[in-house]
Amino acid sequence: MNKHIIVQKYGGSSVANIDRIKTVAKRILSSKKKNNGIVVIVSALGDTTDELEDLAFSITKNPPEREMDMLMSTGEQISCALLAMAIKAQGHDAISFTGTQVGIRTDKSHTKARIESISARRIRKALSENKIVIVAGFQGINKDDDITTLGRGGSDLSAVALAQTLKAKVCEIYTNVNGIYTTDPRIVKQAQKIKTITFDEMLEMASLGAQVMQVRSIEVAKRFNIPIHVRSSFSKEEGTMIVKKTSKLEEIVVQGVTSSKSEAKITICAVPDQPGIAAKIFTEISKTGANVDIIVQNVSHTRHTDISFTVPKKGLSKAFAAAKKIAKKIKAGEVHQDKNIARISIIGSGMRSHHGIAAKMFQTLAKNKINIEMIATSEISISCIINSVQAIKAVKALHKAFQLEKRK
Amino acid sequence: MNKHIIVQKYGGSSVANIDRIKTVAKRILSSKKKNNGIVVIVSALGDTTDELEDLAFSITKNPPEREMDMLMSTGEQISCALLAMAIKAQGHDAISFTGTQVGIRTDKSHTKARIESISARRIRKALSENKIVIVAGFQGINKDDDITTLGRGGSDLSAVALAQTLKAKVCEIYTNVNGIYTTDPRIVKQAQKIKTITFDEMLEMASLGAQVMQVRSIEVAKRFNIPIHVRSSFSKEEGTMIVKKTSKLEEIVVQGVTSSKSEAKITICAVPDQPGIAAKIFTEISKTGANVDIIVQNVSHTRHTDISFTVPKKGLSKAFAAAKKIAKKIKAGEVHQDKNIARISIIGSGMRSHHGIAAKMFQTLAKNKINIEMIATSEISISCIINSVQAIKAVKALHKAFQLEKRK
Repeated sequence: MNKHIIVQKYGGSSVANIDRIKTVAKRILSSKKKNNGIVVIVSALGDTTDELEDLAFSITKNPPEREMDMLMSTGEQISCALLAMAIKAQGHDAISFTGTQVGIRTDKSHTKARIESISARRIRKALSENKIVIVAGFQGINKDDDITTLGRGGSDLSAVALAQTLKAKVCEIYTNVNGIYTTDPRIVKQAQKIKTITFDEMLEMASLGAQVMQVRSIEVAKRFNIPIHVRSSFSKEEGTMIVKKTSKLEEIVVQGVTSSKSEAKITICAVPDQPGIAAKIFTEISKTGANVDIIVQNVSHTRHTDISFTVPKKGLSKAFAAAKKIAKKIKAGEVHQDKNIARISIIGSGMRSHHGIAAKMFQTLAKNKINIEMIATSEISISCIINSVQAIKAVKALHKAFQLEKRK
Repeated sequence: MNKHIIVQKYGGSSVANIDRIKTVAKRILSSKKKNNGIVVIVSALGDTTDELEDLAFSITKNPPEREMDMLMSTGEQISCALLAMAIKAQGHDAISFTGTQVGIRTDKSHTKARIESISARRIRKALSENKIVIVAGFQGINKDDDITTLGRGGSDLSAVALAQTLKAKVCEIYTNVNGIYTTDPRIVKQAQKIKTITFDEMLEMASLGAQVMQVRSIEVAKRFNIPIHVRSSFSKEEGTMIVKKTSKLEEIVVQGVTSSKSEAKITICAVPDQPGIAAKIFTEISKTGANVDIIVQNVSHTRHTDISFTVPKKGLSKAFAAAKKIAKKIKAGEVHQDKNIARISIIGSGMRSHHGIAAKMFQTLAKNKINIEMIATSEISISCIINSVQAIKAVKALHKAFQLEKRK
């Protein structure tokens, strides 16, 4: 019998071509030799997902979502069949399954389905026959027996959900980076790999710009306390463990610095200072589907005030139009938009109980002549909105100020 | 309710690119307007099947058949999703299904599975909702819920089997030719399209070189008496109807002339003329898996005889080796092989009851100085093996001799 079950997920870049598929197969075999039950979730080969999407959009500007799922799910079916072949060619029995075949039941929301249950009957049977199991990621099947997909990055979710169902010891996420870093190594050369990070910290890191793992899958891992190991498929080096609580929790305050340019700022000037006016504004904005994040209301001497808020750049034009409409209605002043902003965040679970972290952040930015436009804080993060041209400078300064280059 | 159910099958060339998929969608919509229930079976886009096969063989020389089916079945899944999108974009509701989803149950012979049953529950439901139904051809599912494929040309079989299950009025096979011709129009310019042909005649035509429809699917159509309409997806012209009995059966004797270079000839010289010697030889040859077809034993004055037979070129080397081995064992003489042969056949249901057809064939070949090496006859065909360099000349002469250019 298998000592442990280990779930491994390989992303599209790990299986981008035939050679890489063979390399991944070799890697899987070496894990197998440690006498573990191995269940592999694999994404579509390299750019397959984009290619299939292009095909659909060349047929129609508005492809029906059910048919999109029918189409897109083939990418993972191809890669899991090829990976099973490569493993068998290297001498170990392997078997591939679609989402349908392993009973990954989802709700009916095509292109962004949520997993409801996993039977995994065939996986357990194959494991008991000492087969390496390859499962097509990103896909499931709904109550009508229609194929569904889980949204971009959905293979991470397939992996975490299967790890939970199979009571796996660990869920290994293989990607093209060595792990999670204290900040983006392309910006700060001295960025250090983080050995251990909590789910909460990772959620902040993921949503604020470190695009290594899908956010929903981290949420699921957190809920069921499934240890995640993010590591490179191109090296044997240990990556980053994502866990519930790190043993070093007391010592480490700031885990990392992130920057994101995905938001824009809208300012409504000279808003009449009346009760309920903010509610009026944001009810109108939310109708556009925009996810309003940081909101700042400037106190003023007169009976008027300026209200600024951020929205994702994607929904900016709709939100801006709505803001202008409501401004007119409530007799406010001009409405401005600013796309040239960046959100700089420091993240760490110990932050709350440590004084002076926020002050140090503000001082560091001030010392570097970086103007803070807006501030937001959470349990484990402090974010500042600054001018986007100063983003790199800010990340470098903060990384140094919190001595992240000395992290071991 | 739908007046009739019509099953349409579109081959890979009919859906080779986005424009053709849109054209096919338009064609399907115009059939739908005649108030029929339309069920479409579609092959993989253009060269997808070959591309997927190449991927597998670049992983391993000997890909496991179960994984091959997992891989290859994606081709049809892609095309049926795209076709459903194209139809919806043109304004009619459509839904695509995999072989699994419509319950095409097969045996366990991966890569060449046989259909055992079809539930078609979801097809009937979708038809009752006035949807155009698109089904992925070439694939099914076995008792283990593993994906199977039906072998090359398997989409024809999917179409015929669905037509039988749904009691369709007709099964239309859309291809890149206008129908079945009296002979290959690339060889004889005067070749005429045949309006109606019997299943038996078509079986001879198909197996003897006219590669328009898969042989197994014609056998199934014959068994269940499902009328087939072979026609072009690029024109509105009527094609060829394949039916049980043609109304003109008495008048038409020779339907067509075919030529094939897929066989080779093996001759064992000086075989001792003893009872049971032929059985010994062909038992040995059949062990190689070669399908021996025409056998000719030359009468001789001595106690020795020459035995010649044809085998498919594919298995020639194995069959030749076996022939040499048995020749030595039975103390026969030399063994020769000849790849430069062609089989020229005339086909027609009325042949048996018409005298002089064979004589006319032999005379025509003789008049054209074409030597006949072997002869084989069946209920509805006469075949001659000749030197392959004379194949085109023979086809032209026979087409003219039987006045096939005057067929209406």
